[in-house]
Amino acid sequence: MDEKKYSVLFKVEGGEDVSIFAFFGESLLDAAKRANLALDAPCGGNGTCGKCRVKLLAGTVRSEPGQHISPEEFAEGHRLACTSAVISHIAVQVSGMALAYQDRIKVSGRGVVRERNIFRSLQKDLKAMGLEKDSGFELITVKLEPPSGGDAAADRERLLRKMSVQTGLKEEDIGFSLHALRRLPAALRVTDFSIVCVLRRETGTKSGITIMDVFPGNTSPPPVIAGMAIDIGTTTVAALMVDLSSGEILTMGSAGNGQIRYGADVISRIIESARPGGLERLRSAVTEECVAPLIRDMSKTAGLEPENIYRVAVAGNTTMTHLFMGINPEYLRLEPYVPAFFESGSLKSADLNLGVHPDADVLIAPAIGSYVGGDITAGVFSSMLFKKESLSLFIDLGTNGELALGNSEFLMSCACSAGPAFEGGDISCGMRATDGAIEACHVNRDTLEPAIMIVGSMEQKPLGICGSGLIDLVGELFRCGIINAKGKFIKEGKRIRRDEWGTASYVVAFAGDTADGRDVALSEPDIDNFIRAKGAIFSAIRTMLAALDFPVDAIENVYVAGGIGGGINMRQAIRIGMLPNLPAKKYHYIGNSSMHGAFAMLTARRAGEMVTEIGRGMTYLELSSHPGYMDEFVAACFLPHTNGALFDQVE
Amino acid sequence: MDEKKYSVLFKVEGGEDVSIFAFFGESLLDAAKRANLALDAPCGGNGTCGKCRVKLLAGTVRSEPGQHISPEEFAEGHRLACTSAVISHIAVQVSGMALAYQDRIKVSGRGVVRERNIFRSLQKDLKAMGLEKDSGFELITVKLEPPSGGDAAADRERLLRKMSVQTGLKEEDIGFSLHALRRLPAALRVTDFSIVCVLRRETGTKSGITIMDVFPGNTSPPPVIAGMAIDIGTTTVAALMVDLSSGEILTMGSAGNGQIRYGADVISRIIESARPGGLERLRSAVTEECVAPLIRDMSKTAGLEPENIYRVAVAGNTTMTHLFMGINPEYLRLEPYVPAFFESGSLKSADLNLGVHPDADVLIAPAIGSYVGGDITAGVFSSMLFKKESLSLFIDLGTNGELALGNSEFLMSCACSAGPAFEGGDISCGMRATDGAIEACHVNRDTLEPAIMIVGSMEQKPLGICGSGLIDLVGELFRCGIINAKGKFIKEGKRIRRDEWGTASYVVAFAGDTADGRDVALSEPDIDNFIRAKGAIFSAIRTMLAALDFPVDAIENVYVAGGIGGGINMRQAIRIGMLPNLPAKKYHYIGNSSMHGAFAMLTARRAGEMVTEIGRGMTYLELSSHPGYMDEFVAACFLPHTNGALFDQVE
Repeated sequence: MDEKKYSVLFKVEGGEDVSIFAFFGESLLDAAKRANLALDAPCGGNGTCGKCRVKLLAGTVRSEPGQHISPEEFAEGHRLACTSAVISHIAVQVSGMALAYQDRIKVSGRGVVRERNIFRSLQKDLKAMGLEKDSGFELITVKLEPPSGGDAAADRERLLRKMSVQTGLKEEDIGFSLHALRRLPAALRVTDFSIVCVLRRETGTKSGITIMDVFPGNTSPPPVIAGMAIDIGTTTVAALMVDLSSGEILTMGSAGNGQIRYGADVISRIIESARPGGLERLRSAVTEECVAPLIRDMSKTAGLEPENIYRVAVAGNTTMTHLFMGINPEYLRLEPYVPAFFESGSLKSADLNLGVHPDADVLIAPAIGSYVGGDITAGVFSSMLFKKESLSLFIDLGTNGELALGNSEFLMSCACSAGPAFEGGDISCGMRATDGAIEACHVNRDTLEPAIMIVGSMEQKPLGICGSGLIDLVGELFRCGIINAKGKFIKEGKRIRRDEWGTASYVVAFAGDTADGRDVALSEPDIDNFIRAKGAIFSAIRTMLAALDFPVDAIENVYVAGGIGGGINMRQAIRIGMLPNLPAKKYHYIGNSSMHGAFAMLTARRAGEMVTEIGRGMTYLELSSHPGYMDEFVAACFLPHTNGALFDQVE
Repeated sequence: MDEKKYSVLFKVEGGEDVSIFAFFGESLLDAAKRANLALDAPCGGNGTCGKCRVKLLAGTVRSEPGQHISPEEFAEGHRLACTSAVISHIAVQVSGMALAYQDRIKVSGRGVVRERNIFRSLQKDLKAMGLEKDSGFELITVKLEPPSGGDAAADRERLLRKMSVQTGLKEEDIGFSLHALRRLPAALRVTDFSIVCVLRRETGTKSGITIMDVFPGNTSPPPVIAGMAIDIGTTTVAALMVDLSSGEILTMGSAGNGQIRYGADVISRIIESARPGGLERLRSAVTEECVAPLIRDMSKTAGLEPENIYRVAVAGNTTMTHLFMGINPEYLRLEPYVPAFFESGSLKSADLNLGVHPDADVLIAPAIGSYVGGDITAGVFSSMLFKKESLSLFIDLGTNGELALGNSEFLMSCACSAGPAFEGGDISCGMRATDGAIEACHVNRDTLEPAIMIVGSMEQKPLGICGSGLIDLVGELFRCGIINAKGKFIKEGKRIRRDEWGTASYVVAFAGDTADGRDVALSEPDIDNFIRAKGAIFSAIRTMLAALDFPVDAIENVYVAGGIGGGINMRQAIRIGMLPNLPAKKYHYIGNSSMHGAFAMLTARRAGEMVTEIGRGMTYLELSSHPGYMDEFVAACFLPHTNGALFDQVE
């Protein structure tokens, strides 16, 4: 690689063109990374996943056809960015598929109906526990005497004096945010020294109140005390903006986690973070590129300034919270797998550069181990299983699978390496549950023709398949006898194709009907990956039950969480042997429980304390060293299972 | 002014060339401001002060000769930047004089001898009050059990558990700085889980300790707990870096306040701050352009990282602390002259972008009014006058003059509009006490020839006159009968010149002997300005004494503060009627008392509390509305005074 530079123009479907320079011999994927263009490359750029596909429009790259690019496609200009070396000035088209994971922000007014129903239920639970209206924030109006020659006290001291009288607190127990102080002189002089203050009541070792903000007395409508609940997923960041006075949801939003360009799973991220500058790159990829813009966009939709956000509650897996806080996650993957922290201690927004009110408190759901993080402690809270005497199972299908089993007496958790399949990773046509994703599917047993549901508008054409669609599709292929218990194709037909290496696929949507003019097809290697993922979940459930000596029937409720698409078809999940064969009424899809837990922490301080208590009280079962787990896993890598009796009477 | 742009090259004496574009018709001074080149323009750019002189090297500007540029000088290419409009591509030479106020940083190892002696005396005072070693910081070594399969607690929780045992505090009373947490995983693994922690003991409503930093157990030499004491002057920012464990001074440094380009006095700054974006420009000019680089340079000299600075104590006048904190100072100059705050409340470094440890506490000396600021409360502390039963007078000669009169029973303060003369402003040859400044002077009564002392190396040629030099020179001109009581020239000679308008000057150094090849001369208008400044000080003293009904003899000690050059020749100051005619032994020059007070706040928490108590207890005398002050002022605008009896027996 010499220092010769070439211009590279990325023409981005549905986005702005990006023009950069690349060095001679540099891979297009590396060039794209430097340009902050997040091409999807879950394999980390070694040519195996086939997602970082681009189409050459002008110029030449050094590249060859291969498993993912047929000679015909190659002739048409298709290339993988990771295995294409820049050797001239070039222009390439970046298709929607390669951008499926990029951090495009989606903000949806007040959220979709299903999500809102889950929230109603959570809010009812919080109310039943007496936790509503416990945010600790309040608005109060203060009318000061204007200064005069005889009383020339400064603005701050004038307000403190009156606030002390009005609240009965000593002046030294009243904190004053610099942000509020900066706004005070002007606010006081709009309406003759009458103002509205945002107060935060402090708890714990600190007592008293903090004056967080001030507004002129005539502000109309009254100032909104907003808060953000954020779920930082390995693949997707989801957020809620909440009015902390009423508990009402103001906006919902989500964005791809910008870290995706460094690999789909947490291990790739940890490895990247250990490279020079890597920790800061990963921190910035989630914060400055993703969380902060999401907050800005959601604020705009809600008609607020980001400074009106006075608290942020965050839940995420252990690696995600380490990276979000800029803390080296290296030791999470080294024996004895010890995180830098379980609990974050007290943090404020300015520490983390979130761009909201600088003194906003940032609450981070505590982790209990390297692979069971705050997404699980928050999720377990939102499931409310710890309030029930009967046994419950909690399953979070994120980029990994985490489980908790317990009741009001005890809690046990474990993590299984399900991989990113449920979020579309490791699957050639996989994508996250965003526009163009097939989220549900039915296959006609006679014609083998599929009927599909797609995320997005009525006119949306399919682009790929998200987690819930995958569960459906594999279930349907198995039900229709298209694939056998090992996931191998055993039928032929118009929809079934075999490539030159003999690998079979089922084409869910033909090129002419798709958004990017390429087939959406599920191949045998995809099905293999998926079966391993579902097998990991099922064997983890079996191992936990065995460790605690419970029969599967002892489980009264199963809470399935995860933002993997249009809810999960539990019957299909049981059919393929992913979930145990229990009556349908025991199953509850609880959506993004990590975000819901963060919502609870945000709106009720006592809920935050309870999440911490859940974290401190939960034991952790290390599956990888647990006797019997590997045997369970191998047995579960069939459709539905080597022990068919477990699934004898699927409804 | 059309949008046509011309290139402007500033060739900067002793610095790097600066090249920018200017619009047609734009003044050179405005162009320089945009280029962040701080040309001195204390008059604010209206052509009256004559400081922003440049020499045209190429191209043409629209300009005319005038009071400050003679026809000969004009022919040689000299121009005032403020009255020169760009009408072609040009190159200009910027001389040292025009740069005298720019924010060049000067860091001097462990400080000059005189300053160190003042500090020894202050440290002795602090020790006598039992205030040494009260910084609240300490280093402790902690040896943890390494994690194992059986004890997989996270690093943070592992340290808290041990720290709780070692300190006897409850875990919830131990705070943990994010900075320390970020450094913890690596630090623990250097020396088998043995580390050194920097702890801060908390006081007040917060109790317990905060873990501020962690280092590997084998760090050698042991980590330094450094702190910064900073005096933010209107003209100059001065700073000390201190080892908080020993109280030793590590480095001293100073820099011009970058705000100077917006005018020499606080009123110009307040006016600028009200323009769009002005507040942020002024905040940034002192912080990012001046304080933060000064801290970086001083850290480098001391061999430390800025992150090793765990506390910052700041003193400055009310306008300066407002601007430093990014708070609108507009109401300081509007009736009834009410500041936004007297006390800053608790602040940390990250709030103010200082670039030191993000959780370093920032202590700001409290103000007592719009024109008596933290420089005075801190200065009064360092004078220790509040510890004495006898009456003392404190005078701070900064860009303005502030005074305090009192003892252990009471304290009164006032501010007088002395203007910036003592720091070289408003004086055609004036400059601050930096290299090339004449800081002392003697004139031979017979030959009228001067002998001068210059700041800088032995070879340094004079460039201008700083405050202490001005007091000397005016005193000498008066003593030698060169000027009369009104400051008018009454002798002729080789050193006395008159320009075409008949304005006389005394040439202290001829062009051939100066650093920039121009005469250093003091003119009648300069002397007028200076007499008003000294008259303001003297009349303020008289008014305060009268208000409290004390005779001048009741004053037992006079503490004169201000970084105006090589100390003040008190005899000269009395001779010109600036200070009252008291025995020399009553006078004490105490240097930059504002910085010394900040030093005390930095090293002893109780000292900080005492400065706050001083602020709360001090009354303020508003001179402008005080009956009799104007008469006193008019009477004092003579050399030495209209009432000569006041200075009858000057030693």
